Amino acid sequence: MKIVDGGVCAIEGVLAAGACDDEYGVAVIVCKDSDATAVFTSNKIIAAPVILTKNAIQNGKLSAVIANSGNANCFTGDQGIEDGKAMASIVAEELDFNIDDIAVASTGVIGRFMPMNIIGKLINKAIVRLENSSEASKNAAEAIMTTDTYSKEFAVETKLKNGKTIRIGGITKGSGMIAPNMGTMLCFITTDIKATASQLNAALKKAVDASFNMVVVDGDESTNDTVVLMANGKSEESIDENFEKALEYLCCQLARMMAKDGEGATKFMEVEVNGATNTEEARLAAKAVVSSSLVKTALFGADPNWGRIVAAVGYSGSNIDPKLVSVDLESQDKKVNIVDHGIINAFEGTSQLEEAENIMEEKNIRIVIDLGLGNGNATAYGCDLSYDYVSINAEYTT
Amino acid sequence: MKIVDGGVCAIEGVLAAGACDDEYGVAVIVCKDSDATAVFTSNKIIAAPVILTKNAIQNGKLSAVIANSGNANCFTGDQGIEDGKAMASIVAEELDFNIDDIAVASTGVIGRFMPMNIIGKLINKAIVRLENSSEASKNAAEAIMTTDTYSKEFAVETKLKNGKTIRIGGITKGSGMIAPNMGTMLCFITTDIKATASQLNAALKKAVDASFNMVVVDGDESTNDTVVLMANGKSEESIDENFEKALEYLCCQLARMMAKDGEGATKFMEVEVNGATNTEEARLAAKAVVSSSLVKTALFGADPNWGRIVAAVGYSGSNIDPKLVSVDLESQDKKVNIVDHGIINAFEGTSQLEEAENIMEEKNIRIVIDLGLGNGNATAYGCDLSYDYVSINAEYTT
Repeated sequence: MKIVDGGVCAIEGVLAAGACDDEYGVAVIVCKDSDATAVFTSNKIIAAPVILTKNAIQNGKLSAVIANSGNANCFTGDQGIEDGKAMASIVAEELDFNIDDIAVASTGVIGRFMPMNIIGKLINKAIVRLENSSEASKNAAEAIMTTDTYSKEFAVETKLKNGKTIRIGGITKGSGMIAPNMGTMLCFITTDIKATASQLNAALKKAVDASFNMVVVDGDESTNDTVVLMANGKSEESIDENFEKALEYLCCQLARMMAKDGEGATKFMEVEVNGATNTEEARLAAKAVVSSSLVKTALFGADPNWGRIVAAVGYSGSNIDPKLVSVDLESQDKKVNIVDHGIINAFEGTSQLEEAENIMEEKNIRIVIDLGLGNGNATAYGCDLSYDYVSINAEYTT
Repeated sequence: MKIVDGGVCAIEGVLAAGACDDEYGVAVIVCKDSDATAVFTSNKIIAAPVILTKNAIQNGKLSAVIANSGNANCFTGDQGIEDGKAMASIVAEELDFNIDDIAVASTGVIGRFMPMNIIGKLINKAIVRLENSSEASKNAAEAIMTTDTYSKEFAVETKLKNGKTIRIGGITKGSGMIAPNMGTMLCFITTDIKATASQLNAALKKAVDASFNMVVVDGDESTNDTVVLMANGKSEESIDENFEKALEYLCCQLARMMAKDGEGATKFMEVEVNGATNTEEARLAAKAVVSSSLVKTALFGADPNWGRIVAAVGYSGSNIDPKLVSVDLESQDKKVNIVDHGIINAFEGTSQLEEAENIMEEKNIRIVIDLGLGNGNATAYGCDLSYDYVSINAEYTT
C-alpha cells in the first residue's frame, strides 16, 4: 500500500471543486457512472439531504455528490426536501446527469432554511471549476469544513491479489461541532475499482465500523452524518480483500485526522484494546475509554490516570477480569507498562510513574489495554476535553 | 408527605456520627437489627468495600454502616479486602455487633492502600460521638463528602394507607469526581418501616431507577457506588405503596441535590420526557439529553439550543417521530414552548426566543419534551459542563 497525493482526485476520471463565501461552502465531486453505496447516521432525527441521498443510492448508482457547509438543512420539513432537490437538480442540469444519480449532503446550522440563492450561486461557481487535480480535491475538502481547523484528505494506491494496482481517495470533515447547533461527519470516497453496489456496501460498512464509528469527540451523534463511496471502475479490476484492507486503512487515517482536529482538542489519543472476548467487546471497551470525560480531562491535564482508564473499561459492557488487565502508555518513542495483570506499576516514586507522566505530556498518546481474555481487538480514536471545547460550544448564543 | 429535619437521624433509634481530618473522613450510621438491602455499581471493576457489603447484605440484615472518604479502597487486591474487614471489625467490636451485620463503603482515590492507622483512629473517634440528632446526621453527611461543595441529607414523614406515619431519612454524597481518580455516589437510607429484605429490595430498586440512575454528571460510572437501605421496624408498620412513593421521592430529592452539586456545575437541569412509547424509552431519551456534552455546554452558555436537545433524543435509542416532538423550557416562574409538533417556534426575532434566552439565564432549568407517542415518562437530573469541570478533573497531576 502506498500513500498518494490527490485526495478524491487521485482517481482517474474524478473531478472535484469547491466554492466558498464567508459563511457557506459548496463542494462538488463528480465520479461519473459509478457503482456506489453510502452509510448514514443512525440518529432518528435525520436531515433532508440524508433522506434524499438514501433515496438516490437505492439503485446503487451515483455520478456526483453535491455538499454544502453552513446550513445542515435539518428540521426544515418539506421546504428542506425541496431545497435539497434543487441543489441536486442544478448539478444534474449543468452536467447532464440524472437527478437520481446525485447524492446531497449538508452540514451546519440546523432548523434554518437553506439560503438557496447563495448556495445556488456557489454550486454554479464550483461546477465551472471542476477538474481532476490535487488542488481541486483540496478545494472541495476545504469547502465542507465547519469548525475544522484544517482540511482532511487522504489517498492510497494498493496492489490487488492479482498484482494490479487500484486507488482509493477520500475527503472528510470533522467532528468539530458547529455553531450554533450541531456538527456532522461527512466523508466522500472515490475509487477506480470495479464492484457492485452491494460489494461496495459490505466493504464500506466494515471499514466504517473500524474507523468513523470508533471516533469519539463528544459522543453527540449528528443528524447529517454521511459517508459515500463511489467506484467508477476505470481500473477494470474487481474488488478483493486487498481493496477492503486499503479502504479500511484509508477510513482509519481520515478518522484519525478527525479525532486530532476534534473541537478544542490539544491532544490526540488512540486507545487499542487487545485480548477482549470478541471484536464487539473490544470496541465497547475502546470506545468507553476514549469517550470518558474523566479520561479526556486527564489527557488534557497530562495525568497518567490509569484508574479512570480501568474504570471506563469496567463500565463499558465488555467482559473484564480485573486480575488480567494490563495497561501500557505509549508515545512515538516511549512506552511504559502502568498496570500489569491487575497490579499497579506506576505508584508514586516509581520510574514507571515518571515515564508515564512524560508520555502524557506528548501530543499523540496511545493507551494499549490488554484484557487477557480472548482474541478480540479494536482501536478507538479520540481527543482531550479542554477549556476550548467548553468555550467553542458554550459561548455561542443564538 | 412532609419534609422533616434530621437526615438519617430522623428515624427513632438511629445513631450517626462523623469524624474527619484534612484528608479523610469517616461516617458511622447505626440502625440496629435492621432488615436491609443495597444496590451497587454495575461497573465490572468493583472496590473491596462493595465486595464486602455484597456479602454482608446476603442475609438481609444490617446493624450499621461504616463509610470513609479519601480512599476508595479499589484495585487494592487482597489487602483491600483485609482493610475493609478491619474497618467493619472495629465497629463490630466497639458496638458488639456481628461483623456480618456491618456494611462498608469507601470513596476517594483508587489504587492506593488504605491508611488504616488514620482510618482506624477516625472510626474510634466517630463511634464515641454516636447519637440520634440532626447534628450527628449532618456530621456523617459531611464526613463522606469529597469534591461535593455541601453535605446532602433529606428526610420525610409519610402516612401509610392505614393512616399511620412512618419516616425515611437519607444522606448522600455526590457525583463530583474525586482528585485524582474517581468519584462515587454513596447513599445511606434509614427508615422505621417494618419490612423484609426482599420487600425493601424491590422498593429500593424501583426508587433508585427513578432517581440515582437518572443523574448524569459526566457519564463515568464509579467502582464504588452503593446505596444502602436499613429498616429498623420501630414503627411496627408494614411496608405499602405509600412507603414506596415516599422512598422514591426521597431518592429523587437526594439525586437532585447531587446533580446540582455536580463538579463545576453552575446550573441544574431537569429533563422531563413525556409521551414516550414506554418508561424505558422515556428514560433513554431523558438521560441522552442530560448526558449530551452539547446540551451541557449550551446550558453553561445560556443558549436555548433546541437543535441539540432534539438531536440527543434522536440518538437516544427511544422511538421518535420528528413531527410529533414538542419542547418546552421552564424556569421557576417562566415557561415557553420552543418546538411544537416538530415546528420551531423560537426563531430569531420571535418573543419565544427572547423568553427562551431569559429562561436559560436562570440557575435551575427544566426541559420538558413531549414525544407524542405513548404514555412513557421519566425525569433525568443533570448539570452544565463548565470550565470548572475541566479544571477540577484536568489540573490534578499524580
